[in-house]
Amino acid sequence: MPIRIGVIGTGIMGADHVETITTAVSGAEVCCIADIDSRRAELIASRVPGAKALSAAEDLIESPEVDAVIIASSDATHSKYAKACIAARKPVLCEKPLAPTVPECEEILRLEEAAGVRMVQLGFMRRFDPGYVELRRRIASGEVGTPVLAHCVHRNLDVPASWTSETTVFSSASHEIDVMPWVLGRDITKVNWLSPTQVVPGSLCDPQVVIMELEGGALVFDELFVKSGYGYEIRCEVVGREGTLELAPTARVVARSSLKVSQDFPSDWRGRFAEAYRRELQAWVNAISRWRSGNVESAVDPLDGPDAWDGYRAAVVAHTVLVSMSRGGPAAVESMTLPELYSRSRVIATKTRLAG
Amino acid sequence: MPIRIGVIGTGIMGADHVETITTAVSGAEVCCIADIDSRRAELIASRVPGAKALSAAEDLIESPEVDAVIIASSDATHSKYAKACIAARKPVLCEKPLAPTVPECEEILRLEEAAGVRMVQLGFMRRFDPGYVELRRRIASGEVGTPVLAHCVHRNLDVPASWTSETTVFSSASHEIDVMPWVLGRDITKVNWLSPTQVVPGSLCDPQVVIMELEGGALVFDELFVKSGYGYEIRCEVVGREGTLELAPTARVVARSSLKVSQDFPSDWRGRFAEAYRRELQAWVNAISRWRSGNVESAVDPLDGPDAWDGYRAAVVAHTVLVSMSRGGPAAVESMTLPELYSRSRVIATKTRLAG
Amino acid sequence: MPIRIGVIGTGIMGADHVETITTAVSGAEVCCIADIDSRRAELIASRVPGAKALSAAEDLIESPEVDAVIIASSDATHSKYAKACIAARKPVLCEKPLAPTVPECEEILRLEEAAGVRMVQLGFMRRFDPGYVELRRRIASGEVGTPVLAHCVHRNLDVPASWTSETTVFSSASHEIDVMPWVLGRDITKVNWLSPTQVVPGSLCDPQVVIMELEGGALVFDELFVKSGYGYEIRCEVVGREGTLELAPTARVVARSSLKVSQDFPSDWRGRFAEAYRRELQAWVNAISRWRSGNVESAVDPLDGPDAWDGYRAAVVAHTVLVSMSRGGPAAVESMTLPELYSRSRVIATKTRLAG
Amino acid sequence: MPIRIGVIGTGIMGADHVETITTAVSGAEVCCIADIDSRRAELIASRVPGAKALSAAEDLIESPEVDAVIIASSDATHSKYAKACIAARKPVLCEKPLAPTVPECEEILRLEEAAGVRMVQLGFMRRFDPGYVELRRRIASGEVGTPVLAHCVHRNLDVPASWTSETTVFSSASHEIDVMPWVLGRDITKVNWLSPTQVVPGSLCDPQVVIMELEGGALVFDELFVKSGYGYEIRCEVVGREGTLELAPTARVVARSSLKVSQDFPSDWRGRFAEAYRRELQAWVNAISRWRSGNVESAVDPLDGPDAWDGYRAAVVAHTVLVSMSRGGPAAVESMTLPELYSRSRVIATKTRLAG
Repeated sequence: MPIRIGVIGTGIMGADHVETITTAVSGAEVCCIADIDSRRAELIASRVPGAKALSAAEDLIESPEVDAVIIASSDATHSKYAKACIAARKPVLCEKPLAPTVPECEEILRLEEAAGVRMVQLGFMRRFDPGYVELRRRIASGEVGTPVLAHCVHRNLDVPASWTSETTVFSSASHEIDVMPWVLGRDITKVNWLSPTQVVPGSLCDPQVVIMELEGGALVFDELFVKSGYGYEIRCEVVGREGTLELAPTARVVARSSLKVSQDFPSDWRGRFAEAYRRELQAWVNAISRWRSGNVESAVDPLDGPDAWDGYRAAVVAHTVLVSMSRGGPAAVESMTLPELYSRSRVIATKTRLAG
Repeated sequence: MPIRIGVIGTGIMGADHVETITTAVSGAEVCCIADIDSRRAELIASRVPGAKALSAAEDLIESPEVDAVIIASSDATHSKYAKACIAARKPVLCEKPLAPTVPECEEILRLEEAAGVRMVQLGFMRRFDPGYVELRRRIASGEVGTPVLAHCVHRNLDVPASWTSETTVFSSASHEIDVMPWVLGRDITKVNWLSPTQVVPGSLCDPQVVIMELEGGALVFDELFVKSGYGYEIRCEVVGREGTLELAPTARVVARSSLKVSQDFPSDWRGRFAEAYRRELQAWVNAISRWRSGNVESAVDPLDGPDAWDGYRAAVVAHTVLVSMSRGGPAAVESMTLPELYSRSRVIATKTRLAG
Repeated sequence: MPIRIGVIGTGIMGADHVETITTAVSGAEVCCIADIDSRRAELIASRVPGAKALSAAEDLIESPEVDAVIIASSDATHSKYAKACIAARKPVLCEKPLAPTVPECEEILRLEEAAGVRMVQLGFMRRFDPGYVELRRRIASGEVGTPVLAHCVHRNLDVPASWTSETTVFSSASHEIDVMPWVLGRDITKVNWLSPTQVVPGSLCDPQVVIMELEGGALVFDELFVKSGYGYEIRCEVVGREGTLELAPTARVVARSSLKVSQDFPSDWRGRFAEAYRRELQAWVNAISRWRSGNVESAVDPLDGPDAWDGYRAAVVAHTVLVSMSRGGPAAVESMTLPELYSRSRVIATKTRLAG
Repeated sequence: MPIRIGVIGTGIMGADHVETITTAVSGAEVCCIADIDSRRAELIASRVPGAKALSAAEDLIESPEVDAVIIASSDATHSKYAKACIAARKPVLCEKPLAPTVPECEEILRLEEAAGVRMVQLGFMRRFDPGYVELRRRIASGEVGTPVLAHCVHRNLDVPASWTSETTVFSSASHEIDVMPWVLGRDITKVNWLSPTQVVPGSLCDPQVVIMELEGGALVFDELFVKSGYGYEIRCEVVGREGTLELAPTARVVARSSLKVSQDFPSDWRGRFAEAYRRELQAWVNAISRWRSGNVESAVDPLDGPDAWDGYRAAVVAHTVLVSMSRGGPAAVESMTLPELYSRSRVIATKTRLAG
């Protein structure tokens, strides 16, 4: 009996998720689609056998036909829908951010704690990218010794005219803010924002560099260049005391022509992370299946990916980066302590890894 | 309603297919598993919710619960089961080879022709590898001009003691024998076998080089080195009149340690082609779904991958390589003309590509 | 008539220079060798036909047999010998640093200004490395637009126990401090020192990161890791507004073995920069030959490489890095204005480049 | 006292050699230049202080001012001048080929034997390329076990309209014909010529593949594509029983722009082998210096590079390739036995290597 999924929001990410679930994920089907643009919802639904379009996201969340929900609507609506899902006790995959403000994130943490179970998985897909997964595994194995530095590069070909310095932090840097602590096994304690260009409120500083200090002192340098002018590229090298590990290039073909040997960059993140999105969705569906099948531990812990706490942490760190941007110099990350619900699941995750 | 799949044979490939379908393919489930070793069949079945083990492959093929069949049993049994599937009018994914001998392959062609529909997809998974797919698309686009040469490298870390020169041809070279005509859009007309080591019947010449001449004269050099001693590696560079295109390395992490920068090789083909196997199975399931849904063209043409004709061609060419091996020097490939059933589907495939 | 060169100091660098001049440089010969360890001087001299060993560096400088001098003695002696060479009006190639303190560097500038001619070339050999030369030329061509960032990596396999944080700045970072303004065509205005490890005076923080801000705002991130544990590696990527340019790996052979494809790192800088040293020496000899031949412009400007001003700038910036290290946070570089002698030669250099 | 060199022929190679000796070789100077085009000879001579132009090559060879001779005139004149040099007992660096015909090569061998000393070094510069040198050293070290295969790629951007299939063999393939036996430590016993294009006498088959069988059975595949359309590229991978070793790419800068990461190819061989030419000339000059200095062994053996025997072998193998080209199928290499003069020097070379 496949997991029946309702999808809220049919922009690029929502439509991609619908297609991936329908064509490349085992054990799930898209049954309902909601969008404030109802014609768009109907168009996307018409491509999926058996799926129907709904006008209201709230109806989708409450529909008895829907086992689990994907939130891919506009950023400002994420927390509203996530709270409704928690109230309906339905697993939810929420595209980042969990919420635009820290207090909204905190409210979701309180609701999940009250419910006694983690319902929300955040859409930080890099945790499912085979490259980052191998990087993390090999760092953890001790192969290159204690990590002391990391160099990240995050470049886009171009961005829309409305993009500001803040957008870079929330939409781009948030990926490294989430994934680097996960790769290195340490939380971020301090951040420092730099740019070769002048800060003008409401405009775009580009490129930016965010320096993150982690527990124990390791430094992560994250270059964000959203108008790089040449292509979409993600790089990450972790430097340990006995060697380094770095994501390999991902192009599939090497071409020789016109006095050059070359490999192509994708023009945006979807080509780069298509496999990560597929694995993210499959892992989420598998976690829901395990939950449903009544396995004891997973009954209290359905999730296998980043959770609301990770969404909260990303929000806290991103807001701290803005503090550094606006006043200059390093800023300390101030965060609540890890609630017991999330602490418990992390212990289980560690056990699972040790056993696996 | 998912496609219900029966799997015959639970060796490495059969067990992998069961797992892939169960965990990573949309629209299908494994319902029956047969193996001459009934305990092995039961073990594998026990891992799949709702799957049952059968003692006889014939029962699996005829079971009304089974919509489609995967043949992953020993090579000698492939044609027997494929013929039974055709008789039962059930789509089948048959691991290579279609049959050990050319006459057996021909018999399957005749049965499909009599049935008027292609039932058999061959397990040449490289046609679904994203690297080969991009290579073929870019060759076809004319980006590097008319292809005139190709250099293939096919190396294994090691092979069992029972492996002979003939095994290399049938189990290893058959992949390039299938995929290179597909990449280059030309059939093989002549082959020439070479080795730096002496031919001793029943033993292993290693490495071997198979030179294939294609229609129009293009030459493919295929190095096969099954005891390379260092790892599993597949390379392919196609040389056109205006440039070359080559498969890129596939490692995901670059390591620096001990005075070296390095990337790992997998120890066998499963890591290298895991994604190709997943896409092969998904494409096969999608083709069956389209067939079932009554689309007119796909009613006569359910398949989206290599078919029985490709299996026949691979057998003919491989046997011609043996002729060259045993008597020395080039040998011409002698093949029946393309039957109308397969010719028709190739026209459709070309149309689909042009439209796509 | 070859240029007759006297070499002061026969440690690793001095001995290497003697060998390079004797075996791979056109138009020069080593005629005198001085070292405080006279047996060492005699040993090295015995390898060079016609060369003699001297006990005092001062005698070497004043010897009428010596046309030009290489200073490769201990750091603290550099400025003393450089001043003697200026007094003797002999061209000198001085290994870095020009002097351990800024005032000593300033004194040399004053002496050269008084002499009205630049005599001193600094041993910043990277300016002759074919990779850096190509990088600079292509940056200057505008191929990737205005440079806004650069990422440098400078890693050693290991260093002696006596090495401190300050040694890293003076001996390692000084290379990027010199070469990056030259590559980017801008001076350094501000520096910021960071490390994942605690600053303890007299001990070694490792790795360190020096962030340099250049005129116009471009930021250079320089990672210095002297006990990297894996090998000697130099990396440099310059990020422009329309693309990036990066030094390519320099290994000459790719090896496949033991489940890895790998390239070797050298264990120290000499293998990496052997070609740069040869070209540095050849360019220096050529400049002296042009001077001697009486070409008008070169009569006032014999040098073709980094000069005393560059040595002064490197000292000023390195000392500013120490300020940042000791008190934390960014520190502004405070430097005298460019004296007319050095300004003039820079105009000539620019003209030569434009004409070339 | 520098070696005074006379250069015959001032085409591309001759002019390059003059410049290299004058600007980058220790211990030598160009004193005389001859060319059938006397204005060309004067032009080149005018760039070298102290050099004079001569009208007749014979005068240059006999001039008491000339210690050693470089022959870079047209191919047909090589043997005539080489013989004159032997008669004058002057060391000679002869650009390939030694002579266009095998009998002419044999005559030179006889003359050297009669003289009792090897005078002629052949201009197979790859033997001085740092990549090939490292490849050979590491093969010899046993790092990858016994070599069994090699894959060579030799591609030019384009060639003049007059270029024929034979030109490819004599001008391009001759490099691999010389260098691969040197790298692998085995002579060529058999060759086989293939091409995807039809053989038409006097026209150009392109690409060509020359398969060489070496003593012990190792096979070398040499692709020669003179109108590759994309750039000048040399590749070489040697496959041993325990791994492979391959020349690394030689570009110095990696560029990212326009949706590609790329490295440039040179447009011809001069950029690729500039360092090899410099080392070739330096090694030749060093050998002459040793000879002159009266070292006993080098008195009978001045050369450190490929000699007349290597030139003879290259001619014999190239002519055997033409046999295969014209009649199809493999052809055995038939060569005289190694004369004692060359045998002796090979023993010495081996001893030197073992001692070194």
